[in-house]
Amino acid sequence: MMKAYRELSENELLALKEDLNKQYEEAKAKGLKLDMSRGKPSPSQLDMERDFLEIIRSDTNLKTSSGVDCRNYGLLDGIPEAKKLMADMIGVSEDMIIVFGNSSLNIMYDTVARSMLFGVLGSTPWCKLDKVKFLCPVPGYDRHFAITEQFGIEMINIPMTCDGPDMDLVEKYVNEDPAVKGIWCVPKYSNPQGYTYSDETVRRFAALKPAAEDFRIYWDNAYAIHDLYEDRSDQLLEILGECEKMGNADMVYEFVSTSKVTFPGSGISALASSKANLDSIKNTMTIQTIGPDKLNQLRHVLYFKDIDGMKAHMMKHAAIMRPKFEAIEEVLLRELDGLEIGSWTKPNGGYFISFEAMEGCAKEIVSRCKDAGVVLTGAGATYPYKNDPKDSNIRIAPTFPSEEELSIATDLFVLCVKLVSVEKLLQNK
Amino acid sequence: MMKAYRELSENELLALKEDLNKQYEEAKAKGLKLDMSRGKPSPSQLDMERDFLEIIRSDTNLKTSSGVDCRNYGLLDGIPEAKKLMADMIGVSEDMIIVFGNSSLNIMYDTVARSMLFGVLGSTPWCKLDKVKFLCPVPGYDRHFAITEQFGIEMINIPMTCDGPDMDLVEKYVNEDPAVKGIWCVPKYSNPQGYTYSDETVRRFAALKPAAEDFRIYWDNAYAIHDLYEDRSDQLLEILGECEKMGNADMVYEFVSTSKVTFPGSGISALASSKANLDSIKNTMTIQTIGPDKLNQLRHVLYFKDIDGMKAHMMKHAAIMRPKFEAIEEVLLRELDGLEIGSWTKPNGGYFISFEAMEGCAKEIVSRCKDAGVVLTGAGATYPYKNDPKDSNIRIAPTFPSEEELSIATDLFVLCVKLVSVEKLLQNK
Repeated sequence: MMKAYRELSENELLALKEDLNKQYEEAKAKGLKLDMSRGKPSPSQLDMERDFLEIIRSDTNLKTSSGVDCRNYGLLDGIPEAKKLMADMIGVSEDMIIVFGNSSLNIMYDTVARSMLFGVLGSTPWCKLDKVKFLCPVPGYDRHFAITEQFGIEMINIPMTCDGPDMDLVEKYVNEDPAVKGIWCVPKYSNPQGYTYSDETVRRFAALKPAAEDFRIYWDNAYAIHDLYEDRSDQLLEILGECEKMGNADMVYEFVSTSKVTFPGSGISALASSKANLDSIKNTMTIQTIGPDKLNQLRHVLYFKDIDGMKAHMMKHAAIMRPKFEAIEEVLLRELDGLEIGSWTKPNGGYFISFEAMEGCAKEIVSRCKDAGVVLTGAGATYPYKNDPKDSNIRIAPTFPSEEELSIATDLFVLCVKLVSVEKLLQNK
Repeated sequence: MMKAYRELSENELLALKEDLNKQYEEAKAKGLKLDMSRGKPSPSQLDMERDFLEIIRSDTNLKTSSGVDCRNYGLLDGIPEAKKLMADMIGVSEDMIIVFGNSSLNIMYDTVARSMLFGVLGSTPWCKLDKVKFLCPVPGYDRHFAITEQFGIEMINIPMTCDGPDMDLVEKYVNEDPAVKGIWCVPKYSNPQGYTYSDETVRRFAALKPAAEDFRIYWDNAYAIHDLYEDRSDQLLEILGECEKMGNADMVYEFVSTSKVTFPGSGISALASSKANLDSIKNTMTIQTIGPDKLNQLRHVLYFKDIDGMKAHMMKHAAIMRPKFEAIEEVLLRELDGLEIGSWTKPNGGYFISFEAMEGCAKEIVSRCKDAGVVLTGAGATYPYKNDPKDSNIRIAPTFPSEEELSIATDLFVLCVKLVSVEKLLQNK
């Protein structure tokens, strides 16, 4: 058991600093070039799916069960077989699904853009309002925040707990302020902490009584089936059903995709929502597009056959990813346990580990890592306006580098955490 | 040579009407079910490309020339090889290209939506303006008009000639009215007439001096390489270069796609424009999407290799489509020549024939055809607000039905043209 840094004397800290600095200069001299910044599958994950690309052959039946030729125009909302598959990923009925193209981010963006331009089920278009606000559980996903920022929507931080967002605050804002039109959620294996919302959290979401008729929950179920372990996967209560029970059937847009099931650039994505919401969206879509790539939907259906096939496939991803998560956790535990200069999450799934440094240290840690050749997600990226008020959160993305690279990168990371923490403690002496 | 209907006496017309009515009732009794409504490739065209779907094999190199793995995230604006291919389709440089997903309509929609929400290169967002107007050459493409109608943009009809839109009118509106922000153009093998803009028309476009700084030409080059004949293809002057020469480099958004080269649902599309326009669009796109499906771009590159491969392929499409166009033209000529109750276009490419009936007859002709089992594009669809002021234009889409079906459908069509024209002439007696 190591001694907490804050219990060290100034002299001890100075000696430690000198030693850490020497180690840092040695590490820097190695000329590393490693990237732990993005939730990107590794080449070995992608290589598992080479046969996915050959699944359509010259004799493959290219018609849907409803008789539509997947090569031609038609079926704006996706092929029935793909609806079923995507519905099963999140446990809803297939008639609550529209299947889109390769980017669920694009669905989210368009959903907000549509609300800006046309309103929501007859409400005033948001671009005509003086003020629109979104709640943002923090730390959270930078690309969510980038969308709302681009549209000039005011973002309000809501602290995350291991059960989900602080629901007292959520209820207060949503139920009292009609300018609050949405909340960004990654309810399972949240980005970056890997937390899964508890049943109580989901039920409290479903029981909201929004002051705004056009308030919606943006439920980005990005890691719905992205477990790391076969025997301990988090369970997320299905929200659309809960909302319906509470008379809030229209309150959720749920997003899901296969970007991290098949290929990040060539997956398929889907929106799940109530009939009223879907009908309204289809009314716009019929003007916006000729529809999604149905052949790529068909590839998914042929490759996985059903949700069981898809889930079995996810265990192959897990087998590649799990050792990477564990390698990082091992280094963090070995090097930082007891020092009280940082804490980290130990998720059962998803793509990230969240590291909480001492206040005021995150930017400097990321910067030192970068100078020594290891790129992390920018500090602050997990907060709206890239502004982490405590400057303490760092997102670690273990999936892309090899295990060997990860181990080197994490060694450097903990070294920088120690060094920056010591400097911080010395400043405060 | 047949006698013009308008020279027939009332009694001759009455006798003719009786005879035509009898023929119509007989046709109706056949219980036809044919569709000439949409510009849709036929199954035999799609079957030509079965091997396209197998072009990526287990040993295919999936990296771009720039080293990016097409399966993973990255390359928001498309793979370099696909940029080159799409650039060559329209004769521009590849650095003027962003390659998108499967729907060029989606690019157009998003381009207008972006202007509504954010303005154009720093101009006032259109949603903040009292009035935005678009010029619409007529007859034109219904899906263009649907976009501008959805955004509440006022549409102004501009008559088409066989050289393109009436440029005197275009110049008047664009150069004098700052509310005019755009014009929809299908410059080659226009939808529905199959006209190609003359060099002079293109040069006059390039020489516009728009009253609005955010005026743009929406140049939907949907049929850029869609010739029906090897030896008589229309030539379209490349507009981006012309505009640059005239100091109007930012004035054009050009759209192109392979929807009718490979598959309607699974092609790729591109936007060509100036660097300033592309940079601005990429700034929004980086928030909107993780990028297009790069594997499908790669399929196109591997399948066609280069523009020559693509053009050779288009001749195979032409071999299937040409007899269909000619079958319709043959019936129209045989049955209607000299009657002076309709005229029609004889395009060298594209997907449509445009039929001009006597004033006030189009709706009734389409309705009679429908009652007898032949679906045509709705009369009026080729005009903004579905309002053809003369009720005379009918779009014929020859590609989807088989030749045999087409011949039956066209026989019914000319019968309905005759019948409705006779009734109209009798009304006026």
